This record gives sequence, structure tokens and C-alpha cells, in this order.
Amino acid sequence: MDRRSFLKSSAIGGSAAAATALAAPAYAQGNRTLTLVTTWGRGLAGVHDAAQRAADTITQMTDGRLTVDLKAAGELVGAFEVFDAVTSGQADMYHGADYYFVNQHPAYAFFTAVPFGMTAQELANWYYHGGGMELHDELGQIFGLKSFLAGNTGAQAGGWFRNEINSPEDFNGLKFRMPGLGGQALGKLGASVQNIPGGEVYQALSSGVIDGTEWIGPWADEKAGFQEITKIYYTAGFHEPGAGLSLATNREVYESLTPAQQRIIEIASAEAHQWNLAQFLTENGAALQRLQSGGVTLREFPDEVWDAFGQASQEVHDENMGDDIYKRVHDSAMESMRSSSAWLKTSSGAYTAQRDRVLGS
Amino acid sequence: MDRRSFLKSSAIGGSAAAATALAAPAYAQGNRTLTLVTTWGRGLAGVHDAAQRAADTITQMTDGRLTVDLKAAGELVGAFEVFDAVTSGQADMYHGADYYFVNQHPAYAFFTAVPFGMTAQELANWYYHGGGMELHDELGQIFGLKSFLAGNTGAQAGGWFRNEINSPEDFNGLKFRMPGLGGQALGKLGASVQNIPGGEVYQALSSGVIDGTEWIGPWADEKAGFQEITKIYYTAGFHEPGAGLSLATNREVYESLTPAQQRIIEIASAEAHQWNLAQFLTENGAALQRLQSGGVTLREFPDEVWDAFGQASQEVHDENMGDDIYKRVHDSAMESMRSSSAWLKTSSGAYTAQRDRVLGS
Repeated sequence: MDRRSFLKSSAIGGSAAAATALAAPAYAQGNRTLTLVTTWGRGLAGVHDAAQRAADTITQMTDGRLTVDLKAAGELVGAFEVFDAVTSGQADMYHGADYYFVNQHPAYAFFTAVPFGMTAQELANWYYHGGGMELHDELGQIFGLKSFLAGNTGAQAGGWFRNEINSPEDFNGLKFRMPGLGGQALGKLGASVQNIPGGEVYQALSSGVIDGTEWIGPWADEKAGFQEITKIYYTAGFHEPGAGLSLATNREVYESLTPAQQRIIEIASAEAHQWNLAQFLTENGAALQRLQSGGVTLREFPDEVWDAFGQASQEVHDENMGDDIYKRVHDSAMESMRSSSAWLKTSSGAYTAQRDRVLGS
Repeated sequence: MDRRSFLKSSAIGGSAAAATALAAPAYAQGNRTLTLVTTWGRGLAGVHDAAQRAADTITQMTDGRLTVDLKAAGELVGAFEVFDAVTSGQADMYHGADYYFVNQHPAYAFFTAVPFGMTAQELANWYYHGGGMELHDELGQIFGLKSFLAGNTGAQAGGWFRNEINSPEDFNGLKFRMPGLGGQALGKLGASVQNIPGGEVYQALSSGVIDGTEWIGPWADEKAGFQEITKIYYTAGFHEPGAGLSLATNREVYESLTPAQQRIIEIASAEAHQWNLAQFLTENGAALQRLQSGGVTLREFPDEVWDAFGQASQEVHDENMGDDIYKRVHDSAMESMRSSSAWLKTSSGAYTAQRDRVLGS
């Protein structure tokens, strides 16, 4: 489908989008309100904060010439309707995790996280200096969006389990909540993968509808209360090693802005990526201590389970490699990851191992 | 010394500073050029780029209302004169590594890097969410500066040696180039620590004036050409595990700006921190491959050498702990580091170890 043509014709037909396109030159002169819809419930730890941070920074840096009005999930459209709301012109911008939109294009997964993919730092390396941003923009052109990374949860935890995982076979028949390509990989191990909205996960785990769940990390997981149900917490996961969040602007709206305003949106997004990642890592550190004090035990999957995760993840990637854009994004990301991770491992990786050994921490 | 009073009185006496202070209200109305002096030679890999990035972003986001005019080291003042140039009002801003200014205050070391201290990510966690930025500002108030992190080299390499290091005793009498608190620590192991300006290091190593040197990392080191002199390269160092760079604005100049312009300087600085770190990590990854292809062998210091680095680093910190601000900055940084690094180790640290094992990289 030529999605761009579809959008252009729908923009002529749709009143909101048409108003945006026609009034653009006038907008560029005066004050303007941009409606930002998000995939997050208002106040959701960290992820809502990233959206609010970017919104406020844009408003402040433009001295109110662009006022970004944040509508949380459900306030204007539902969480998973934000993509269509912005491509159609109903809203001006969305903030969300782009892997929610793999049905629009599977390559969107790389701009959040893919199984056995990049950490947050490796994602930043690729995005800002390894061609990632340009590929994100190539996807955006298909759908009439101008997208930038604008948040990051850091590595997501492996999750909460009612019983220990000792071998890949333990996933066979396990009812587990995990979205995205990671969930597809777990399915290959025989897991019954459940896609349950965030607000319903606690109840599902508590009642035994599911046997386990991943969510985000210690800070958000503690707020969700999973430690009240089970004490078995796998901290390292394979599925989202550094989940990026995106701020996407309707491309016609973006192009109607002044170069300075466009630059402000780009830089505010990048700043939100760093600010939010540091927020998650700081809050996760504090929450991890509290969880451990409360009796939660930290586990690590055995090597043979990681081997199975790796095999299953590769199968998921292989199934998508027939798509030209997916393959180019995959190959670009993996090449960047291999190169910069080799340096990270031999420098800060070796350093922190020695530092922690010497300091006894 | 009550440095602030000194600066205030000198500002009244100094013509450049007085002009800045008196003309401020008028400046806030129209276009204005801010002179940015740096501690970097023009074009110096990575570090100059960070300064130029911040300068250009401020100019672009203000639509030229603030035009930042970068003067590299030597173009207006010398590299190590930038601090005094900005506190006195001779220039409006400096970009540099704040540990160059430990003679102004020893706590400035923490806003670049200290031995056995934080990685770049841990620094960001502390700076943006653990109180680091507020402490940086407290130091800035003493000297009439408004400072923000605005660049990062990532972990610096242990350095180039003519001979292998097999025990702490091998540093005894070794003529080695290393600035800052790291150099002080090496001195405790008996090294003859040389502070040689960047432009002269190649010649000193080549001629045998020094037995070894640290510089930055593979990218910058390769440009300096040290691989032509020796093939022995220790990749992980103890001395600068994530060296932050700062953009500091004369505080009276900063306070004369509009809130939107102030916010633009803050956000442009933060964005330059992330952008520059990703640049160094990406370029270091590529350069590491080239160096290895060219016959450079990567080494890691043995455990007992790391033990000695740790002991010496602690002694250097202890010598400064009598200063109240140093102690508060140290304790704040180390508490944040312990907390967030515990999470990083058990999440992305465990993940990358498993990923690299499974992928065989």
C-alpha cells in the first residue's frame, strides 16, 4: 500500500488535517498549540514523565510560541490509536513506544527494542552517529511522520515468575505476558504469550490467569506491586535491552514550523531521551534496594535458557528479513552494535568489573 | 578566599565585565553574540565537536537571537585561561573539562571524572537525577558561573606503554603522562607523572622523554599516532571512567537572558552531552578495529595493579576530604553511583555478557 498517497488524500478529506495544512503559513507567525497524544496513562512512572518532559521543554524553549498540550491515553484517543491520530491530523504529535506499531511496519521495533538487540547506550550510538535517525526518518516519510527518539527505559527486567526457570522447557505451556518480538520469541519456546494491558496485569498474575509477567524494571514494577504476589525476580531480560520511546510529529505540521522550532523539537526530544534514561536508572537503583530489603530474590536465567532465547530471537528476525526496510534497519543496527559494543566491553565494561571487585560492591 | 566578592569587585573594575553587566537589559531585547572560548584546539577530535555542537544548537534554536561565536584555544585566550576569561567577563562562555580547574576548586574534578569514579552513564544518572547538577551550580555560584555538562568522552583508555605492566612496581620510576587526580594517584605508585600539553605528547613518547601516555581513547589516540610508536595498548583505565565536558556561562550574562534563552542553553548543553558521548563511542568502536588490524595488541592490567590503583585513588580522595564541598560532592556522587550501578550490573551488564556469549562476539 502506498500509505503516503492514502494519507495525502485523507488529509484533503479530513477537516482537522485540512485545516492544519491550509492554515500552516499563518500558524508559523504567531502562537500555536500542538496537541500531543500519548500511549501512557497520565502519571505512569517514567514513560509519562518522558512525554511531559519533551512537551514542557518545547513550550519553554519556544517561549510559548509552541505550546504542547499533552493528552494522556484515553483523554483524546486510546493508547494504541495515537499513530493513526497523528498520521490523519487529528492530533499533531504522539509520544509512545514505536514497537506498538509493528503492524504498521515491522521495522518500527528497532526504535524501541528488539530481542538480543541494543542497550540504551548502543541505541544512542546507532541513532545519533550510526545512521539510525536517518532510517527512523525514512519510515516516518512512509507514514507522514517526523519521528525522534525521546525517552528510554533502559534494560527491562526479565520479569516476575511464580516458579524458577531452570531450563528452556520450563517455558513450555507457561502463560506469560510479554508484548512485541520478544513475546513472539517466547512463543517459539512453547510459552502461551498473553498480551494484557498494563492496568490488568496485576490482577491476572494475582489470580493465576498468567504464571508470570515482564513489565519494565524495579521502579515501575514495584509501583505495580508484583512483589506482593511473588518474590522471584529475574533482573536481566533478553527482550528489551534498552527500550527507546519516540516523539512523532505529523510531517505536514512539522514542515509548517520555522527551522528554529523544528530544531527545538529535535533537540528537546534528544534531551528527553537522556533525561528519561537517567531517571529510570536512578529510580531503578533505589527501587532494587527496596525490593531486596522486602524479600525479593534476584535471579539470572541459566546459560542454556539464554541460548534458547538467542535461537528463538534469531528465528523471529529471520521471519521479517524478507522486508527490505526491516533488513536494512536490522543490518545497520547490528553492525553499529557490534562495533561500539566491542569498545564498551573492553573499556567501561572491564573498568566497572575491576572497580566493583576492588570496592567490594 | 571569598572568591565571589573578589569577582564582583573585579567586575566593577574591569571594563569588559562592566559593559556586560550594564548593557544586559538592552541585550535581552535584540540579537546578541556570545563569545565561547574553549580548552580545545580547533578541530580536535570529539572535544572540539562537542563545543561546536552546543554553540550551533544554541544559535539555531534561538533563530540567531543568540549567536554563539566559538574561539578555539589560542584564538582569544589560551586553553587554561578560559575559566578566568569567563569569570572576569572577557568572554561569555567556556567549553572545557572542568577538572582543568581543580586549582580553583578541587570539587571540579567530579564534573569531569575522578579515579575509580563514575562511568558516563553513572555520571548522567547522578547529574540529572541524583543532585549532581545542583552541586555543579553551587560551585558555579562561588565563581560567578552557570555551568552545565555538555559533552563526554566515555571511558578513557588506560594508555600506551613501551613495556607491559605486570605489577604495581612497574610504575615505580615510570615517566608517564596523566593529568588530574589520576596522575596524583599514579604518583603514589612511584610514577614520575608528566603534564605535557596534547600537542607535544607524540614527540615526548617518540623520543623517550616519557615511557607511556594516556590520551583519550582509540579514535583520538589513533589520530595522535601513538600506534606508530608502540603496539601495547591498555584499553581500560582507572583514571577517567567517563569524562564529562562542561559549558559554563558568565552568571551575570546568563541572568540577563530571557527564561527561554536560559532554557535553550541548558537543553543544548544536555543534548551535546549525549550526542558527543555517542560520537566518541561510535568512533572508538571503528578506530579500535583499525588499530587491531594494524597490529596493536589490547591489554588489561592485572588484578593486583587494579588493587594498587584503587588504594592510591582512595588516598587522593582522602587528601581532599577536609574540604566541605569536596566531601559533599564526593559523598553524593559515590552514593548515586553505588545505587544505580547495582541495577546496571544486574540488568544491562548481565544482558550484554549473555548476548555476547551467545552471539560469540
